[in-house]
Amino acid sequence: MFIPSDSLGGLSPERKAAVAMRGLFTFVAARVVLAQLQGPAGPTPTGHTSYNQQQYLDLVESLDTPMKGEGGDEWLSALMRKNHALALRLMEVREAYLEEFEWAKVAEMASRETRESNTRLMRASAMASLNATAAEPQGSGASRSMDDA
Amino acid sequence: MFIPSDSLGGLSPERKAAVAMRGLFTFVAARVVLAQLQGPAGPTPTGHTSYNQQQYLDLVESLDTPMKGEGGDEWLSALMRKNHALALRLMEVREAYLEEFEWAKVAEMASRETRESNTRLMRASAMASLNATAAEPQGSGASRSMDDA
Repeated sequence: MFIPSDSLGGLSPERKAAVAMRGLFTFVAARVVLAQLQGPAGPTPTGHTSYNQQQYLDLVESLDTPMKGEGGDEWLSALMRKNHALALRLMEVREAYLEEFEWAKVAEMASRETRESNTRLMRASAMASLNATAAEPQGSGASRSMDDA
Repeated sequence: MFIPSDSLGGLSPERKAAVAMRGLFTFVAARVVLAQLQGPAGPTPTGHTSYNQQQYLDLVESLDTPMKGEGGDEWLSALMRKNHALALRLMEVREAYLEEFEWAKVAEMASRETRESNTRLMRASAMASLNATAAEPQGSGASRSMDDA
């Protein structure tokens, strides 16, 4: 299959996917650390957390800005300037998460669901076409969609 | 590692990734078919293509609208109502592309680049901290960033 090289801004689909996945890892790391900082009880009504309030507040504030840059790197770099220890913690978590992420599961789900989605779309279209034929008198505009099907 | 279940709108990171990958497959299929429709010589200056002008025009028009819906399904469903044969062709291509997509390469790149990015960010931060220490007199505000490093 010929994949045009300009289709994704000159990137291969695999490269594009890798960048997207890195962004996901960075985001997951941020949510994992946020949950750790909130502690078992979560933030108190006054917004205080049991553990490290400054890290918690810095992370919440950072999560308000979109994760720009390849794989969230620019976002992480900005966080590093704001709170060095927190950024280090996020980097540790996203690296550790690499071992946990189930690639095989993603591949299986994406492939199976693409096939299922194709089947579903074709079935919906066939039903619509059938209904149109049943509802309209013969020789009307429904004939074209029957030809296509 | 505890992944908070509400972090991605209730989806697991793997599920979120699978949906994103399905969207990528749909987009790649659209670009593959577009290249096929343009033919070896590409569109002529008048916008005509050698092969199937209607499919070409319908696809170009559809590509102007964002690929909404899970994995581009909604977009494909709209295309199906506009040009049934074209949508079928895209579905065939995205299903065939499943066999070509190199998951192992994506996993390798995403993992390696996450590690490389961590190293790069830490090095940049260490350099900035070192420069700040060298440029400022002792006992100034630079001490905090040294503590963090």
